[in-house]
Amino acid sequence: MGIKVVLSCFYVLYLFLFFVGFPGSIEGRLLLTKKPDPKNAAATARWLVSQNSLGVLNTISSDLGGAPFGNVVSFSDGLPNKGSGIPYFYLTALDPTARDALKDDRASFTISEYPIGTCGKIDPENPTCAKITLTGKLKLVDKNSKEAEFAKSALFSKHAEMKDWPEDHSFQFFKLEIENIFLIDWFGGPKPLTLDQYLHASLNWFASNS
Amino acid sequence: MGIKVVLSCFYVLYLFLFFVGFPGSIEGRLLLTKKPDPKNAAATARWLVSQNSLGVLNTISSDLGGAPFGNVVSFSDGLPNKGSGIPYFYLTALDPTARDALKDDRASFTISEYPIGTCGKIDPENPTCAKITLTGKLKLVDKNSKEAEFAKSALFSKHAEMKDWPEDHSFQFFKLEIENIFLIDWFGGPKPLTLDQYLHASLNWFASNS
Repeated sequence: MGIKVVLSCFYVLYLFLFFVGFPGSIEGRLLLTKKPDPKNAAATARWLVSQNSLGVLNTISSDLGGAPFGNVVSFSDGLPNKGSGIPYFYLTALDPTARDALKDDRASFTISEYPIGTCGKIDPENPTCAKITLTGKLKLVDKNSKEAEFAKSALFSKHAEMKDWPEDHSFQFFKLEIENIFLIDWFGGPKPLTLDQYLHASLNWFASNS
Repeated sequence: MGIKVVLSCFYVLYLFLFFVGFPGSIEGRLLLTKKPDPKNAAATARWLVSQNSLGVLNTISSDLGGAPFGNVVSFSDGLPNKGSGIPYFYLTALDPTARDALKDDRASFTISEYPIGTCGKIDPENPTCAKITLTGKLKLVDKNSKEAEFAKSALFSKHAEMKDWPEDHSFQFFKLEIENIFLIDWFGGPKPLTLDQYLHASLNWFASNS
């Protein structure tokens, strides 16, 4: 094939990617940091939380007699590729999750690697397709605090449409105060990972992978 | 461009799709049924459950003092495009979820449209990106029953690698006996949807959309 033909082909591929999107991207955003080695549990956990845009937030349902109730939510732990490890949420008490948390703040937040697009053809339940459950307390963030400003920039930078969500729904910022970490990123069961190891993993890892 | 050039370009595109995959497919499987009109709550709910391959299964944690514990799992409600609406799981008691259920069977199962790939650039928490939470009881399926045969074919047809999962992990079939349905598929809050409406939605809908 001549150079013109090759260029035409790349143009076709470019148009395809432009209109259809690139597999493995999140909302059109290519991943900027590669998945850490599964042996590095803390880095893998922080990568999962930093790179993902959605998860399931679980509360004790006041409407359903104390049943565990999981709800799909968007979240952010900081600016893109500058995660804090702590998930923040933008919730309305029109939704059962926020109502539940205001009555009983026991909660967990569950994230899969699968929607990031890096599990390939591996089954979502295969332990090499990483998953994490953070268990703790779901707390309302004081709207006049510096932390609320952080939550706002963390969430709105990753979820641009949130800034236009209806004011009369009274969305508020919540965060998960993490107490326990359940991480599976390889064969052999959950990885031992303390909150301290998790929270202090980012400093070296993000610096060398951003 | 001549016909040869056009053919070459399609060949490049074919190679790209072959090696990289097609966005909007699940594990390389193109969606065979289109998303129902959001006004049809029952059909939308059944479509979400039929087309998805993973969700978060929530139990009352016996390890963590009764906290709600969400775990990423694969599931199936039947053969591809022949869903029953009832989610089946292949779990091991090495994992906390199965252990929890055997002590306290209260559970919910949460699914997002987002991983199906049909939400486009809409935020995962935007109500037009559909989500469903089925609440009920997580029950072990008798391994010698006809239902266990159904669960096996439902799960293994959508999750081919399950048949090779290690025997010494003692995987067993579980199902969620649904009692309550929480569906968001548009603005205006959860859609009223009874279990009866949900279970009987498929007959007309799948026949005209498969």
